[in-house]
Amino acid sequence: MATAARTLPLDADAIEAAAAQAGNPAIPLVAALTAAVASVDDQAAGHVHKGATSQDVLDTATMLAMRATVEAMEARLDPLIARLADLATTHARTPMAGRTLMQQATPITFGFKVATWRAGLVRARTRLAGLTEDVLAVQFGGATGTLATLGTSGPAVRAGLALRLGLADPGTAWHGDRSRILDLGTTFVALIGAAAKLARDVMLMMQTEVGELTERGAGGSSAMPHKRNPVAALIAPAALGPASGLLAAIAGGLAQEHERAIGGWHAEWIALPTIATLTLAAIDRTADLVDRLEVDADAMRANLDRLGGLLGSEALSAAIAETEGRTRARRLVDAAVERSRAENRAFAAIVVEDPAIGAILGDRVSAILAHRDAIEAAAAAALDQIAGM
Amino acid sequence: MATAARTLPLDADAIEAAAAQAGNPAIPLVAALTAAVASVDDQAAGHVHKGATSQDVLDTATMLAMRATVEAMEARLDPLIARLADLATTHARTPMAGRTLMQQATPITFGFKVATWRAGLVRARTRLAGLTEDVLAVQFGGATGTLATLGTSGPAVRAGLALRLGLADPGTAWHGDRSRILDLGTTFVALIGAAAKLARDVMLMMQTEVGELTERGAGGSSAMPHKRNPVAALIAPAALGPASGLLAAIAGGLAQEHERAIGGWHAEWIALPTIATLTLAAIDRTADLVDRLEVDADAMRANLDRLGGLLGSEALSAAIAETEGRTRARRLVDAAVERSRAENRAFAAIVVEDPAIGAILGDRVSAILAHRDAIEAAAAAALDQIAGM
Amino acid sequence: MATAARTLPLDADAIEAAAAQAGNPAIPLVAALTAAVASVDDQAAGHVHKGATSQDVLDTATMLAMRATVEAMEARLDPLIARLADLATTHARTPMAGRTLMQQATPITFGFKVATWRAGLVRARTRLAGLTEDVLAVQFGGATGTLATLGTSGPAVRAGLALRLGLADPGTAWHGDRSRILDLGTTFVALIGAAAKLARDVMLMMQTEVGELTERGAGGSSAMPHKRNPVAALIAPAALGPASGLLAAIAGGLAQEHERAIGGWHAEWIALPTIATLTLAAIDRTADLVDRLEVDADAMRANLDRLGGLLGSEALSAAIAETEGRTRARRLVDAAVERSRAENRAFAAIVVEDPAIGAILGDRVSAILAHRDAIEAAAAAALDQIAGM
Amino acid sequence: MATAARTLPLDADAIEAAAAQAGNPAIPLVAALTAAVASVDDQAAGHVHKGATSQDVLDTATMLAMRATVEAMEARLDPLIARLADLATTHARTPMAGRTLMQQATPITFGFKVATWRAGLVRARTRLAGLTEDVLAVQFGGATGTLATLGTSGPAVRAGLALRLGLADPGTAWHGDRSRILDLGTTFVALIGAAAKLARDVMLMMQTEVGELTERGAGGSSAMPHKRNPVAALIAPAALGPASGLLAAIAGGLAQEHERAIGGWHAEWIALPTIATLTLAAIDRTADLVDRLEVDADAMRANLDRLGGLLGSEALSAAIAETEGRTRARRLVDAAVERSRAENRAFAAIVVEDPAIGAILGDRVSAILAHRDAIEAAAAAALDQIAGM
Repeated sequence: MATAARTLPLDADAIEAAAAQAGNPAIPLVAALTAAVASVDDQAAGHVHKGATSQDVLDTATMLAMRATVEAMEARLDPLIARLADLATTHARTPMAGRTLMQQATPITFGFKVATWRAGLVRARTRLAGLTEDVLAVQFGGATGTLATLGTSGPAVRAGLALRLGLADPGTAWHGDRSRILDLGTTFVALIGAAAKLARDVMLMMQTEVGELTERGAGGSSAMPHKRNPVAALIAPAALGPASGLLAAIAGGLAQEHERAIGGWHAEWIALPTIATLTLAAIDRTADLVDRLEVDADAMRANLDRLGGLLGSEALSAAIAETEGRTRARRLVDAAVERSRAENRAFAAIVVEDPAIGAILGDRVSAILAHRDAIEAAAAAALDQIAGM
Repeated sequence: MATAARTLPLDADAIEAAAAQAGNPAIPLVAALTAAVASVDDQAAGHVHKGATSQDVLDTATMLAMRATVEAMEARLDPLIARLADLATTHARTPMAGRTLMQQATPITFGFKVATWRAGLVRARTRLAGLTEDVLAVQFGGATGTLATLGTSGPAVRAGLALRLGLADPGTAWHGDRSRILDLGTTFVALIGAAAKLARDVMLMMQTEVGELTERGAGGSSAMPHKRNPVAALIAPAALGPASGLLAAIAGGLAQEHERAIGGWHAEWIALPTIATLTLAAIDRTADLVDRLEVDADAMRANLDRLGGLLGSEALSAAIAETEGRTRARRLVDAAVERSRAENRAFAAIVVEDPAIGAILGDRVSAILAHRDAIEAAAAAALDQIAGM
Repeated sequence: MATAARTLPLDADAIEAAAAQAGNPAIPLVAALTAAVASVDDQAAGHVHKGATSQDVLDTATMLAMRATVEAMEARLDPLIARLADLATTHARTPMAGRTLMQQATPITFGFKVATWRAGLVRARTRLAGLTEDVLAVQFGGATGTLATLGTSGPAVRAGLALRLGLADPGTAWHGDRSRILDLGTTFVALIGAAAKLARDVMLMMQTEVGELTERGAGGSSAMPHKRNPVAALIAPAALGPASGLLAAIAGGLAQEHERAIGGWHAEWIALPTIATLTLAAIDRTADLVDRLEVDADAMRANLDRLGGLLGSEALSAAIAETEGRTRARRLVDAAVERSRAENRAFAAIVVEDPAIGAILGDRVSAILAHRDAIEAAAAAALDQIAGM
Repeated sequence: MATAARTLPLDADAIEAAAAQAGNPAIPLVAALTAAVASVDDQAAGHVHKGATSQDVLDTATMLAMRATVEAMEARLDPLIARLADLATTHARTPMAGRTLMQQATPITFGFKVATWRAGLVRARTRLAGLTEDVLAVQFGGATGTLATLGTSGPAVRAGLALRLGLADPGTAWHGDRSRILDLGTTFVALIGAAAKLARDVMLMMQTEVGELTERGAGGSSAMPHKRNPVAALIAPAALGPASGLLAAIAGGLAQEHERAIGGWHAEWIALPTIATLTLAAIDRTADLVDRLEVDADAMRANLDRLGGLLGSEALSAAIAETEGRTRARRLVDAAVERSRAENRAFAAIVVEDPAIGAILGDRVSAILAHRDAIEAAAAAALDQIAGM
């Protein structure tokens, strides 16, 4: 049987054509293998596909393909994660505006932002590594999942098969329990999501008016010489919607009929490989993107200063409140904000001159306006994340 | 602060109205609490919500609500799983037709089918239990995730907060990494899926022409006195599609902007509670369904015999092939099938009279036609599953 | 330009490779065409792609491809719809059990069921025909949709282009309004839905215990000689989930950024062609299925009689109520149902002997028990539908 | 019957409780009405719900509710569309940067952008108006869709019912053809999409670094006095994902079983009302947003000039190419771009001094650099759209 399997001449087109008639490609494949074995040893042919059903073949093949896919993802993710760690370390103290609800909020550093991107990918990477334990499992149950034709040796054969193939032994057939496919789908979509979060931030930072990042060698335009369109950045965000929709299709197909289903199982053949392909593309192009990222620290600084120091108002208020209570702190800061607007001068300039604030905070004013604590906190958070994960 | 929090008069309608203006309910809630504290001790008021942001409040509240939801799910799931173990044990050797692609395939037992339902729920239940380790986590990052206003004590405060609330300490803010919400959504949808698989099988077995199960006290019809519609059975299948669609919405929202997002985060407020509610309903009504299930073992037997013993053909073929090789085995069985059709007599009757088959298998023929091995294999698989999980 | 376009040597691999760098395939395509024209007439080269942008090329190409796709769908749908009209007419008076909530309900005819399948496809077909009016539209707006480089002749050029290409003139650019893509997606998914509804019914009727339909030449099983699995029937149901998920991706991408978007537009490149392919497959295999459908009218009749005439109880009750009022009618029928259960005899036999019912309905009893009105009503509804649509 | 219906004391809690047992709320409702009628006239009670089934009641009720919902949407949309027409007219010639792939591209006007938002809403509004013709239809088919208990008068009764209720007569029952529900869902989601496109643009224009729009009275932050978060703007984008997912649930449920389905129909009860509610919220809050929009034309102008005139490069290149051919035009413009970079001076300043360009274009140079044609083209496109739709 092993010899026949190794030398079996496979005609993919013929198998595809036969699959359309038979309902799946395992049927013509098994028929071809059985015939090849029978031509040498008919007794042996009785043991080809013994105890098994088409879905055993197809689900196991899917799991083997997914294992290779997961390995390919990991191989591309690891250098990306390492690259992000370097970038975050380099820019641990490069100040920039943190933004919430798409508005400038309080100061962070670019290294902190990069560390956050990395943390998202690391978390998604961890799930990927967890798949081998139970999700990437052999399928072997026979016609209705009982392995009846193997008598009492069914479980032992399944365990041996799992060992040979390097897949987990699920302890039972999972013909009708497709939660492993859902696990794969979710894990992949979470990866696209982590990549797309990074890419979305990059796109926002690449906007003409923001100008903090550039994708080196990015897409030009035949008509507009100044355009440097994001290209690598768009793949993960573009993949996220379709992959999420296909995840819903896998989830929506979980109510499978009886011992082996019709329709819901076959929907996976469309959904899972497409999600996997989109995930590989998203990781690949996001790695490209990070490799080609140009960082403009001056632009980050200029954007941070654009509001004249207002991004330090929260820290200022908190520092005053330590000794003066919240109400007075808020009153002093609000007055400075108001004066800054009325006089059309920078908030920082108003604060520096404010005698009441000076009396309370003394030397600390300039450190606060320089966002010193904010930058140190961001740097510490970034470096802690990298050290810890 | 603790006193003020305990005695704070909360007006839900006022908070809702203010939330529509402010963008979220945490803002008016924090304002009310701060004012209450300030009226007693302004210094203390400076420490209300210190270092935190609205999203810290809302995400943490979501996690506390989800923890309670998970506990409610577990409380309802455990007796259901136990009930299924009993039912599977009782019917471990109740023969019925196994069905694949919605056609009768090979014999199983009802206990095996029930054990398979239970295994799906147990697998989903296991994920639920796994949520406490890392998914049900506190959110505490401040305006842009760095906890800058707490200086170097940010991580310690977050850890203490996690401990107080009984949530995991995520080691970082996860404002922009929504994969925990995806984890919750997937875990819940997998539960609905496991319940819906059970319910789908029940509906199919309740069909008038199948008649193997009845939902005791099921829905009648004002116009058709004979109707006994599935009612509890329809909830989980009805919930699966909407919950899957909302899962896609969570997944599709993963590409969150900057330090805290707009839109994608808010979409979770719709999606996650709806999924959770649908899951609770699906578990609850599926437990009802199982409690009220009436099993008609005679109907199962009659359906199994409907094809005149043909469901034993795979086992017969396999038994002959052991000594005669696959080609001859197939030839003998095919001839019996053919004669059964030509003479319009039961396959079993033909096989019993077949001298060639008799010469090869002797006494084993009647055991095979009685599906003895199939029933034992199904029973063993059922009992193993229950013992092992 | 026309000559250069016709003779342009296109290297698909080179365009694909360049597209990955440029962000889309229109950029290298236009570059190749412009170079080819310039090599002959540089002045003319200034008019290649004049006023246009890449998205104009790609959206218009998509619409041309979709028009061909729609035509292919129509070419396959029309004979299918005609075939269903024939089948419905042939079986207009072939009685069978109507089923609701997967339970037998009241009598219908197979022709009525087929007419209902046909009506669903006709409704979906009608939407398809409606696409040419406005949905299958040219895209021509230039860089930001204003056609500024064409001065005041923009609208006239767009109208001329639409005329040449046989597409609708949308009256404006629709770079950022993707509702036409949503229209295409919904129209296609509705077609899959209509096909899947037919196929789902067929699968249910093919169940071993129902046995009313067979897919001629359906998929066998290497191990189980009696199996005749649905094969063509599974395609449309398998396609419905993934296509629906991808429709959600198109819908979820509607919030496109500014004048021409990033990400959401590119997601359509994955979603729409996949939906279209799944739709073609669903129509094609459903047409196959109908061509190979074998109808077992005897099995339909036997299933209809399985409940001993109970399916006539609603009609009986309604007939009695005409003169006796609802309360008495219900009491008489309920009593007959009860007696039928108590004596374990067919409901019809009990009714025929019932003196009270006989006194009220006289001769009409036997017609009601023969479902005469029900069959006529079903036949009339079937034939009306076919005549009217 | 009419009297009884008008005076029927309805206990919603009791109906809800009974619905959980019966499978739907129509069963207890009809029972209550029948009892009320019977207490006055038993003969008349025989005509309550005559020929109908629960799904007739529920689907028709859904359509009546949806008609009211559509009217509420229209009432809110019309002033919004009118407001956008005014805004577009006011700002027809307010120049700003058009943006593609989130990069500045060529000049447009704010009025053009607003007209594009309006066009999207008008297109979605048009579909809404189209629903009354066929989608908002009565459901009346009886137990299995044949209206058999009404003899030959079924179609006439259905037509009369449609007339009375102001719904379309579908010409048949549509119990198993849920494409009307899909039509409603798609129409609503397209509306959310049109609103979300507007809101997404507003959010992008509200970014601190862009600053072209403000939401008057927008959400503040307790900790950051400078923050003016988008609030009304976030609702439509937040609603789009969940509504799209629920649309997929409706689409995925189209493969309904037999004459009236189980599960797929019930899923609509969750999906459609949620989509409708989200749509109303999206329209409502987007109308709020537009009402409270503050336009900063100076910021638009400043952003347009940020690249030193580079946004005129396409128009310049096109103008030169008219007489000089594409190759030379491109060479001249590229040289100016290059010099602008090398000398770190504005592109416009370089072009004005360029003798070769001056020789070709003469006076036209300043008009091109002032984006005169671009602004006129945008204004014309905006005003045409408003006049034409």
